[in-house]
Amino acid sequence: MKTVRLIRNRPGVSIAPDGTRYSLPSQNEIDQQFAEIARRAEGKKVVVVQGLGFVGSAVAASIASATDRQGRPLYFVVGIDQASSDSFWKIGKVNDGLVPGGSADIEFDRILEQAVKERNNLCATASEEAYGIAETIVVDVPLDVVNTTVELRSEIDINLREFETAIRAFARKMRRDALILVETTVPIGFCERRVLPLLKEERARRGIQQPVLLAHAAERVTPGKNYVSSIRRFWRSFAGYDAASACRTREFLASFIDAESYPLYELHDMASSEMGKVLENSYRAMNIAFIHEWTLLAERANINLWTVIDGIRVRKGTHDNMRYPGFGVGGYCLTKDSLLAQWSATHLFKTDTVLELTLQALRINRKMPLHTLTLLSELLPDGLSDKTILICGVTYLPDVPDTRNSPTEILLEELENAGATVLVHDPAIRSWAERPFMVVQRDLVSALEEADLVVFAVPHRDYEALQAEFLRRPLLIVDSNNVLTDIKAEEFHAAGCRILGVGKGHWRARGYHLAT
Amino acid sequence: MKTVRLIRNRPGVSIAPDGTRYSLPSQNEIDQQFAEIARRAEGKKVVVVQGLGFVGSAVAASIASATDRQGRPLYFVVGIDQASSDSFWKIGKVNDGLVPGGSADIEFDRILEQAVKERNNLCATASEEAYGIAETIVVDVPLDVVNTTVELRSEIDINLREFETAIRAFARKMRRDALILVETTVPIGFCERRVLPLLKEERARRGIQQPVLLAHAAERVTPGKNYVSSIRRFWRSFAGYDAASACRTREFLASFIDAESYPLYELHDMASSEMGKVLENSYRAMNIAFIHEWTLLAERANINLWTVIDGIRVRKGTHDNMRYPGFGVGGYCLTKDSLLAQWSATHLFKTDTVLELTLQALRINRKMPLHTLTLLSELLPDGLSDKTILICGVTYLPDVPDTRNSPTEILLEELENAGATVLVHDPAIRSWAERPFMVVQRDLVSALEEADLVVFAVPHRDYEALQAEFLRRPLLIVDSNNVLTDIKAEEFHAAGCRILGVGKGHWRARGYHLAT
Repeated sequence: MKTVRLIRNRPGVSIAPDGTRYSLPSQNEIDQQFAEIARRAEGKKVVVVQGLGFVGSAVAASIASATDRQGRPLYFVVGIDQASSDSFWKIGKVNDGLVPGGSADIEFDRILEQAVKERNNLCATASEEAYGIAETIVVDVPLDVVNTTVELRSEIDINLREFETAIRAFARKMRRDALILVETTVPIGFCERRVLPLLKEERARRGIQQPVLLAHAAERVTPGKNYVSSIRRFWRSFAGYDAASACRTREFLASFIDAESYPLYELHDMASSEMGKVLENSYRAMNIAFIHEWTLLAERANINLWTVIDGIRVRKGTHDNMRYPGFGVGGYCLTKDSLLAQWSATHLFKTDTVLELTLQALRINRKMPLHTLTLLSELLPDGLSDKTILICGVTYLPDVPDTRNSPTEILLEELENAGATVLVHDPAIRSWAERPFMVVQRDLVSALEEADLVVFAVPHRDYEALQAEFLRRPLLIVDSNNVLTDIKAEEFHAAGCRILGVGKGHWRARGYHLAT
Repeated sequence: MKTVRLIRNRPGVSIAPDGTRYSLPSQNEIDQQFAEIARRAEGKKVVVVQGLGFVGSAVAASIASATDRQGRPLYFVVGIDQASSDSFWKIGKVNDGLVPGGSADIEFDRILEQAVKERNNLCATASEEAYGIAETIVVDVPLDVVNTTVELRSEIDINLREFETAIRAFARKMRRDALILVETTVPIGFCERRVLPLLKEERARRGIQQPVLLAHAAERVTPGKNYVSSIRRFWRSFAGYDAASACRTREFLASFIDAESYPLYELHDMASSEMGKVLENSYRAMNIAFIHEWTLLAERANINLWTVIDGIRVRKGTHDNMRYPGFGVGGYCLTKDSLLAQWSATHLFKTDTVLELTLQALRINRKMPLHTLTLLSELLPDGLSDKTILICGVTYLPDVPDTRNSPTEILLEELENAGATVLVHDPAIRSWAERPFMVVQRDLVSALEEADLVVFAVPHRDYEALQAEFLRRPLLIVDSNNVLTDIKAEEFHAAGCRILGVGKGHWRARGYHLAT
């Protein structure tokens, strides 16, 4: 997953999303810190986690919380990130015993603080020397697609350089017998065809003949209140470059994952493991896009698609994962993983294979937030030019402070282009990392007061708890994510509001109201 | 579901797929039979099932098997079909106490025989007079798409005439208070916009002012060994035209479905119920097409996709219904239901909505069987012109004698076009209803002997049980449906066979062998 990038860079300082300032260290300070780390790590099994973003910080804390049967920590864990204004605050946060970027999972806060402050087996540094003391190096640096909106498969491009720089960084320092475990979602075939040659090259330069130990095990970290659980108590697939790598990987993963309840699944080769991750996320993206086109039909046919899907999802095992209509797809993975697969087909396997449906699904998902605009125009037929629109919800998941690729941003831009004044509200964030100059409203009732129309984009608890009696006047409402239950919509309607819901049609069903 | 159409029509005779001949009755005989039925039905609650095809015959038997708490039959059931050479054999079979077209479900055989021979509460007739004695009329006549291969949505056409004729047939005779329950999969909005006006028109002609009782409850009948279970012990959605229709429908369905274990789900209107069926089948078709494009990539990337999917399907509730690579999509529903939805969008709701992904999935599925041709050409690089190819499997489901829209037919045609001699074998059928002049081989080992290459298209038990030691010589094998386990493929390879498997790549993984 991608690290949050702050726009408010200042020389010599790295500022966390919550405003905490960390002075960037000098090389001398970094070296001194490493000397201290090396002293503390002596005699211990060291795991280095490269990249302290969404995934890396949670993985580091999870590994640090692993114990033997006597409850003693198994590892001394070092998180490595860069001493840049973009990234250094994450190092600062971890060393303060705090989750970088905040978390909705109290277990995450607890195990990270415990590891740093009580067990003293987790720290973070910008020192690349730390790679040299690691028995295992876990790679959690992002591999980004340059532009997720490209239409032609030949145009799909990925930021190879940053990732390759990260690989070389540890290849130059690593112990010859260290295991490299790549958790990053990468194109199919990438570890063998791109990572391995780099490792071999750097190791050859160091005169190391020994075969490298390399494996891929994609993370399945799910932002939200089960963050740590999604690492420690969830199924995991992996594959090693060779038998020795696979063996070491199995042992390592089993040491911090509950492999008894969630048996580890070994694949034949790293490409299979890499494909597994991009396939499962493409599947999810596909199923979302599929329902979106039926949403459009349902609205035209005045059918409440939500109830139709409820009647289908009872078919356990075949249809129970059918998605509901929605506002849009955000986050880091579902918006780009399919592009990694297509890039791989074209550039690594040199085939003419086109993942037609898969890429079309991405296109549909990208445009999905604009459908809200259609509904909104029905309630504001005279145009948006002098209107104030409040969008409730910026994050891409409810009650999770994660705004990467927020679908709200897509809608916001179109609304502003159409001349509307846009306010945003979101109870899960204080500021919008990708749009730091956009004010995030704090008081929902006041914000509602100012708006000509409100869009409910994310089913945050606070919105679900909203009562019609809190409103100071009737509202125009577009419910883009089934935030209001049908019963509640009935109450709002009784209070004079006009409501349109995505995938609900214009008619009354189970209490859901006509707009007019 | 569609009735099997026999090509071997003869005047005055209707011949069942097993060869049994039934003389077509005269109108006089039909009238006499009805008089007898009316006598037997007197004082009983009569249910008429219109259409004795795959669905209708099973529904009729299921309703006839419903009892009150004392074990007494609730209904006298009359199945109606036409006195044509195409259809009359179904009437004959039912009256003989036999399942028309055969069944893989012993419960189906048992309850049908019991109803006809012991409980005497099920019979079949061609007499339309029987509609006049029904309290409930269940519509199970097919509504066919004229051509399932059309590319343009404006070209999608359905056989309205036959269906409308069927509706008029009972509208002219029905009791004014009879409930009409449509189980046929129809376009969204069809019952209200097409069926209802016809009923009103015919009833007005008869001077009936009373509102008609009409409902839609799509069947979810699954061919195979759980045929009757898929009617009696499975979830069911329904919707009535009005409250009275819905109430009658709920009561009726609950009388022969185990609604305690599988609660009935009432939808707001008939269009929602109609959409539910075409949506759930489109979803399935979509997921099949989605995996097919990843199958092609996996093969190019030398990845055993089967093992990758196994590693993904552990994610219960979100990914456990991911499909595996396959040979193709056959049957009556998945090949056409999406077209009904699109027809509806265009013709009933007059929208410009295009179900892009949904229609593209159908196109991909239609071409899927031709992928086997690609694999086959790799094993026979010198062309197919003087080669004999044995295709093992004609039905679209394993061990179910149902050959409608068999993907084998698509492959067969292409092979014959390429100059190959094609043999087919299938343990589940004696003859191929849609291709009555094609010999279905009976002896697998002899057929294997004759072939230059064998395609395993359907995972029938007989094929799974095949042992390498039965072979008289090494074979070229394309396994298009994971019929051979990887261990078995290993044995065949050891016996000198060359094997390619769909979605397996060319490499050795878990014992699955290289072709060369």
